[in-house]
Amino acid sequence: MKLRVYVTLKPGVLDPQGEAIRHALGALGFDAVTGVRQGKMIELDLAEDDATRAEDMARQMCEKLLANTVIESYRVEPA
Amino acid sequence: MKLRVYVTLKPGVLDPQGEAIRHALGALGFDAVTGVRQGKMIELDLAEDDATRAEDMARQMCEKLLANTVIESYRVEPA
Repeated sequence: MKLRVYVTLKPGVLDPQGEAIRHALGALGFDAVTGVRQGKMIELDLAEDDATRAEDMARQMCEKLLANTVIESYRVEPA
Repeated sequence: MKLRVYVTLKPGVLDPQGEAIRHALGALGFDAVTGVRQGKMIELDLAEDDATRAEDMARQMCEKLLANTVIESYRVEPA
């Protein structure tokens, strides 16, 4: 089954990439943009049909590799 | 209002970053992973309360800056 993992910086963690996007959007005339945060989306194809087990597996992957849990949080969703 | 923009590589476009993640997950023992695609998630704070206008604005931002529409597709969703 397919899962989507969203990895985002925790609130309060500085996001220079998001800031760069915000500046660039401002320079292009999008003045209504007051904040930008950039995160990652990872689509996983798993050879596992049981949804609960697949999501558990994805959570383990996040803990071990996909997210830096000191500064990032993650969310696992069925695709 | 807050919007989320998801930028993903179009099907068929090579994704070396996703491949690297797949290999790393395999090396960690996650053998059930058959495919990985990595995309971007961008959270936008807009000083615009009308949902339709905010989404139109976000779509323009994607066309002009956030996505490379030759190889990437994007999706705009309310956060």
